[in-house]
Amino acid sequence: MAYPDDLVELVDGFLEELRFGEAPSVSPLLEAMRYSLLGGGKRIRPVLLLAAAQAYGVDPAAALPTAAALEMIHTYSLIHDDLPAFDDDVLRRGQPTCHVKFGEAVAILAGDALFAEAFRLICERQEAEPAVTLAVVQEISEATGVKGMVGGQYLDVSGLVTGEAQLKLLHRLKTGRLIAACVNSGGLLAGVSASELEVLAGFAAELGLLFQIKDDILDVVGDTEVLGKQAGADARLKRSTYVSVYGLKTAQELARRSLSRALAALDGIQGRMGTLAGITNYIYERQR
Amino acid sequence: MAYPDDLVELVDGFLEELRFGEAPSVSPLLEAMRYSLLGGGKRIRPVLLLAAAQAYGVDPAAALPTAAALEMIHTYSLIHDDLPAFDDDVLRRGQPTCHVKFGEAVAILAGDALFAEAFRLICERQEAEPAVTLAVVQEISEATGVKGMVGGQYLDVSGLVTGEAQLKLLHRLKTGRLIAACVNSGGLLAGVSASELEVLAGFAAELGLLFQIKDDILDVVGDTEVLGKQAGADARLKRSTYVSVYGLKTAQELARRSLSRALAALDGIQGRMGTLAGITNYIYERQR
Repeated sequence: MAYPDDLVELVDGFLEELRFGEAPSVSPLLEAMRYSLLGGGKRIRPVLLLAAAQAYGVDPAAALPTAAALEMIHTYSLIHDDLPAFDDDVLRRGQPTCHVKFGEAVAILAGDALFAEAFRLICERQEAEPAVTLAVVQEISEATGVKGMVGGQYLDVSGLVTGEAQLKLLHRLKTGRLIAACVNSGGLLAGVSASELEVLAGFAAELGLLFQIKDDILDVVGDTEVLGKQAGADARLKRSTYVSVYGLKTAQELARRSLSRALAALDGIQGRMGTLAGITNYIYERQR
Repeated sequence: MAYPDDLVELVDGFLEELRFGEAPSVSPLLEAMRYSLLGGGKRIRPVLLLAAAQAYGVDPAAALPTAAALEMIHTYSLIHDDLPAFDDDVLRRGQPTCHVKFGEAVAILAGDALFAEAFRLICERQEAEPAVTLAVVQEISEATGVKGMVGGQYLDVSGLVTGEAQLKLLHRLKTGRLIAACVNSGGLLAGVSASELEVLAGFAAELGLLFQIKDDILDVVGDTEVLGKQAGADARLKRSTYVSVYGLKTAQELARRSLSRALAALDGIQGRMGTLAGITNYIYERQR
């Protein structure tokens, strides 16, 4: 149950070939978008979508437009999150962050453009019944709005999050919801039934939680060089995390339990879930 | 051929009742979104969509979700455009801009959230065949990405725009493309044929041009109090505009010719185009 590097290669190849516009006038904007998008990494979100679709018999290549769109949306969120008004990070995946390299205005626009182009990519190139594609767009727009990613980013900078319930909400919104949308979109593209989708969504939500607990742990125990971004940022920014609220040892125990629940959820799903299990294990064991 | 204030009322009523999320935790974010969205104005973009749909016999009320989404996207672009990294504007529609009132981080997120929620609103609430709704989402995502609004915003801040051809491209992308998307989406929701849609798009593109020339003129001759935003911003920011490139008199003449061409284009379209003609005249004559 190793991490599916073949799916990473598929995603990287597709992202590499994306062209968002021909106009030479905007090439510095395109350069900033590609700079942040092609920074490498494990491509967890698009790989999750491909693995979920594949689990129900869909050829991963057929789901690449939506997979790539999810990586574009993730990249957009990182660019905005790194801005001086937010985390003020200078390093991302071992490279200068987008605003450090291209300036703040271009970085904001590169994020905005990646978000718009993600939806365009799905509409233009994802082959599926219109009703299916529309359901995918709806799922992703909900996962990236007030009830998802942006709502979570707001909670993160608000300084209002104290206590366990609020912390759980923050993490579910900021990271968990988009992770879940990747899995759910894979199911939608595979045309699974509403009841199957519900079971899949249960796994997806647990996976999102696991991902975030692990992220909080890595920010404390991780190495800046291995992470490719500044470790210790949460403490510097006085953010509420699983480690700051529960302590490192309990956070590690919570991650372990979350892993068990996620794998148990997978056991209850029809389909070839081996690859999803491999990704789940990777998310638990990853060092960055 | 007056401006259709009844459609403005429809839009305002719909926007007023929009709720993006229940979670009380994110209410300051919701407040920032509503603050910028409900600032009033002529609602040109949603009204254009409703008028275009109505011209082909669609009940305007049935197109409100998409109309509201376009106003949300317009508002998002204004919020980001007003940021310190861009125009650094402190006044919008006679009120403090979003970042002045709520801080830069919340303003960036309010823009991001309005964009995501716009797509969600269309997917969740626009009643139409899935293929039609998907075509609308595609049109809007193209109009807001690299080949539209954000591409134009980039050109505007790049300082690279010199000469007439570049100026035209800047204006077509930054303002014209979304204006055109409003008209085109109205046609799509009405189910007009591809060839009719092409003629409608010709009018829409001309209207977008007219709007922008007039905007450039108002920035020079307009009164800050009437405009509700700082006049003279283009000169302060050393932006290329129709006035800076052609001079005021020629710009006014270009606006007049653009008005004629837009009205002539309307004459060639089947349907009750009176309201669209009224809006076109309003855009030419407006003082803000």
